[in-house]
Amino acid sequence: MKVLSQGITAPQGFSAAGIFCGIKRKRKDLSMILSDVPCTYAGVFTRNIVKAAPVIWNQQILKQGTKVRGLIVNSGNANACTGIKGMEDAETMARVFAEQVGANTQEILVASTGVIGQNLPMEKIKKGILDIVTVADKGRAAAINAAEGIMTTDTFMKEMAIEFDCDGENVRIAGIAKGSGMIHPNMGTMLSFITTDAKIDQEVLIEIMRSTTDDTYNMISVDGDTSTNDMCLVMANGLAMKETLKKGSKGYDDFVEAFFTLNRELSKLIIKDGEGATKFIEVTVKNMHDKEEARKMVRAVITSNLVKTAFFGEDANWGRILCALGYSGAMFDTSKVEVKYINEVGEILLLDQGQPIAFSEEFALEVLKQKEIQILVDCHQGDQEATGWGCDLSYDYVKINGEYRT
Amino acid sequence: MKVLSQGITAPQGFSAAGIFCGIKRKRKDLSMILSDVPCTYAGVFTRNIVKAAPVIWNQQILKQGTKVRGLIVNSGNANACTGIKGMEDAETMARVFAEQVGANTQEILVASTGVIGQNLPMEKIKKGILDIVTVADKGRAAAINAAEGIMTTDTFMKEMAIEFDCDGENVRIAGIAKGSGMIHPNMGTMLSFITTDAKIDQEVLIEIMRSTTDDTYNMISVDGDTSTNDMCLVMANGLAMKETLKKGSKGYDDFVEAFFTLNRELSKLIIKDGEGATKFIEVTVKNMHDKEEARKMVRAVITSNLVKTAFFGEDANWGRILCALGYSGAMFDTSKVEVKYINEVGEILLLDQGQPIAFSEEFALEVLKQKEIQILVDCHQGDQEATGWGCDLSYDYVKINGEYRT
Repeated sequence: MKVLSQGITAPQGFSAAGIFCGIKRKRKDLSMILSDVPCTYAGVFTRNIVKAAPVIWNQQILKQGTKVRGLIVNSGNANACTGIKGMEDAETMARVFAEQVGANTQEILVASTGVIGQNLPMEKIKKGILDIVTVADKGRAAAINAAEGIMTTDTFMKEMAIEFDCDGENVRIAGIAKGSGMIHPNMGTMLSFITTDAKIDQEVLIEIMRSTTDDTYNMISVDGDTSTNDMCLVMANGLAMKETLKKGSKGYDDFVEAFFTLNRELSKLIIKDGEGATKFIEVTVKNMHDKEEARKMVRAVITSNLVKTAFFGEDANWGRILCALGYSGAMFDTSKVEVKYINEVGEILLLDQGQPIAFSEEFALEVLKQKEIQILVDCHQGDQEATGWGCDLSYDYVKINGEYRT
Repeated sequence: MKVLSQGITAPQGFSAAGIFCGIKRKRKDLSMILSDVPCTYAGVFTRNIVKAAPVIWNQQILKQGTKVRGLIVNSGNANACTGIKGMEDAETMARVFAEQVGANTQEILVASTGVIGQNLPMEKIKKGILDIVTVADKGRAAAINAAEGIMTTDTFMKEMAIEFDCDGENVRIAGIAKGSGMIHPNMGTMLSFITTDAKIDQEVLIEIMRSTTDDTYNMISVDGDTSTNDMCLVMANGLAMKETLKKGSKGYDDFVEAFFTLNRELSKLIIKDGEGATKFIEVTVKNMHDKEEARKMVRAVITSNLVKTAFFGEDANWGRILCALGYSGAMFDTSKVEVKYINEVGEILLLDQGQPIAFSEEFALEVLKQKEIQILVDCHQGDQEATGWGCDLSYDYVKINGEYRT
């Protein structure tokens, strides 16, 4: 597996663009991704029952099981809580974009992120779509523009592209994402868009997407809130392969692994850009009797405000970790649990067989002063494992999210 | 129903005390409550699977179904994650106290709160128990001392006593509580101890306790973390009544109402003393089709960091509230939902039929500047209701919980 520097247009046949069309004050606010040929499509969406219009649009297309050509996405306005008008606007975005690129409206995916409860400025967006298609390109600059056009409070763009051997062919997967930064006046969104030139059936792609999401996007947390607009979409145009990927083949396994790696790295980038975050925390629960129980334990630790503030304070507070594990809802024998902090400075054993272990506070502070820390929870009661990623809770998080909107 | 100023010793036959025995540096750290006669006992306990020794002790006594005489409780050390030695220490506390007051060891309840993972300083505690029984008293000062002896990071003591007519008798219920303030180096605890001179069977008392807890202690949140030591205990000695309360009688209903009121007020006091809290937020979800679903919605709103920081920032951010309702797990028709902020300054309608309503930002700021704000969510799809209480998330919360322990 090789990491490429090319971005979202790395897979064959994909072009992209990102421009400013006037939704935000200054920065880019409209992006597109387009495939030369129809793509197999899969998506996972927010479980929030308050769903933004583009979420509903994309879910409908997914249900149809038809192929797609591309995606048009705006930032600065989420098109959420906008009723029937919002649905019409999402469809209009798809239709205008489709007309420009010679596709059917139903072949275009739509996404939005930003302020909720306000209608989209459709005149600006329609004009923007006419403009953006004229600059769409397969080069590096276009890929960067597309990655930047979906940013909101993100402080850096998030992209990755990889190439790997898949049953003798060079297959590429690329992705861009934006973090769950909160936008004035309302809420933020996690968006992730993946392109690949692998050839794959929709039902297989959906299955891979879901299982990948369980261990990537569903295992990160900035603040435990799930937005109305969260979505992760993948488009596979098949241009790099003659034969369709077969479940159980070596190529299939390689694809799954590459796809997982790319999405895991995008997830980690989102956390590294968490609002006000000063620490990146990786939590692994291993040797647990059940995988879903292990995931619950990880999620409880990364979402605990007490754990998060302790990391901000560089406090080796194993009690808060054990407490979070205890209320996670997972059933486990606490008397077997071992907890360690690990990073490049070294490793501290905090808890062994469920009992606190004396440790050097000085050394602990050295470990905790670093920007990245791994919490390793060894349950010693099985062979299942889960990993997740979170960040600390800082003054800046409160500041960013507590500031008055105007 | 009449509020009394007398505290935990208001019901007939209860004495109390609180002293300093040397667990903390300076402040009171040992409290007791004792009934002249055996009491019916009920309790609810943390659902955290990591349970402190006194939690396990009290649960065992509850299972036996036997009567109890009193309670000995220390602050400054939680006796949690202390293994077999911890269980022995809890039993020793009960035994030494029982010997001093002429009871059986099994008639004594035990509680602890404070640092976890350290053994109790048993010599100090044993000496403290010999001392505390010599100052036990039924007066106001003793009641205050007992309320103060269970405090940790609490900034004020929490107590309430009420009197009401119960089938022609003057019955009293009293309680003391401590908040979920976090203690260096570990976690805090919510404790609530209730006394009453009502005459009531244990199974009935347990039932009342559970249903009350569902709408009081289980509907408050400072930071969503559930401690290893949380417990709420009630002792009913029957001295004010000749006949045992009968389910379905007027007296029974009056008792349930009074008991609920007292516990609700203690719950609210805990929130008002939430760490770093600058706002007290009451959330009511009404006209929902299901009570448990309404509770879920309330809990999602009061535990959302985004909602909490918005209140700290005095930001009328209805989007974050709708978002939290949406991911609460409750199923509801969002297009019928109405959201209002209400307090003594006035009332702002933010959302009607699921759609945002234009409002005066200036007036909203006036409402949000107040210390207490009610969020009213009217679902317009049933007749079930739930209320809960929370606080904002401030810089001070991060400071208090992020500070290095030493």
